[in-house]
Amino acid sequence: MPTKPTILKRHRVARTRLFQVEQLELRFANGVERTYERLASSGFGAVAIVPVTSDGSVILVQEYGAGVNDYQWGVPKGAIDPGETRLAAANRELMEEAGVGAHSLHFLKSIHLSPSYMERSIDVVFAEDLYEASLPGDEPEPLATMTWPLGQLTELLRRDDVCDGVSVAALYMVRDYVNSQSEG
Amino acid sequence: MPTKPTILKRHRVARTRLFQVEQLELRFANGVERTYERLASSGFGAVAIVPVTSDGSVILVQEYGAGVNDYQWGVPKGAIDPGETRLAAANRELMEEAGVGAHSLHFLKSIHLSPSYMERSIDVVFAEDLYEASLPGDEPEPLATMTWPLGQLTELLRRDDVCDGVSVAALYMVRDYVNSQSEG
Repeated sequence: MPTKPTILKRHRVARTRLFQVEQLELRFANGVERTYERLASSGFGAVAIVPVTSDGSVILVQEYGAGVNDYQWGVPKGAIDPGETRLAAANRELMEEAGVGAHSLHFLKSIHLSPSYMERSIDVVFAEDLYEASLPGDEPEPLATMTWPLGQLTELLRRDDVCDGVSVAALYMVRDYVNSQSEG
Repeated sequence: MPTKPTILKRHRVARTRLFQVEQLELRFANGVERTYERLASSGFGAVAIVPVTSDGSVILVQEYGAGVNDYQWGVPKGAIDPGETRLAAANRELMEEAGVGAHSLHFLKSIHLSPSYMERSIDVVFAEDLYEASLPGDEPEPLATMTWPLGQLTELLRRDDVCDGVSVAALYMVRDYVNSQSEG
């Protein structure tokens, strides 16, 4: 592993309701100095949950994304509340967004949206042994849901209304995990 | 497809060297009004390239990520320059970061880091028929590279220094694409 750059200076250059931008002045091991900007993390992390039904389908939710100003299909996601474990957050988000709870929740991996310029990460959780359960969420409108066979991800990705990188990564990770379980 | 919310008001709340934060005041189809924030896109887009060697391995690069303040392995990525096509950008980034060019470049899909609060997207490009070629890049230090068998993604994802969501999604997409080509 290479030697990390030295952080010569670090200060906040902008703060809004949702975002904090930090500027880092760095000196790399070879002496080169550079100024980087990054989005600082806030809150207690986030979870992306892949809920798989007994017949091997995933439950997807359709949500308005302000970033793309359009509706998109993806896996249920949400912020971890203060004092909440990631698996508890995962089960709560499932009930809020997908109308199910899970008897079995398994953390797979934390992934970053952009290690280059974002501090925040999201924990990918595989959920199975589902049961019907609902909780009121903080969404402005109820989310539509659909099920999709986990074995047909290529077909899912052909859709223009499926573009969320975290959902894509999480779905593949769970498909591989499920396949490795059934082989083992 | 549901009716998109009406954008009642849209204005910039922060701007730094790298980021622009916009606030959107939205009215959903059911009448509910909400204020959202998002990162506006800047520039001409970006590419993530998965270069696959003749023996079915992918070339990965190791780069310092200011977001995580650590070195991470991932696929070559970079911004598209003004007037450049995405495939030309992909080949240039390959030469700058991985020391190879590609005779064959195939665009697979644009994915978003976060459709919820980021406008920017990244184009996933599959590269094969590689040849040795280098270009000077804008990195502060030369990037280390390694090759990894595309058939062993599960083992790759077990590493703590592999966490980039876009790289994970891109690697799986290319693996599926390559498998579907060899089956066809």
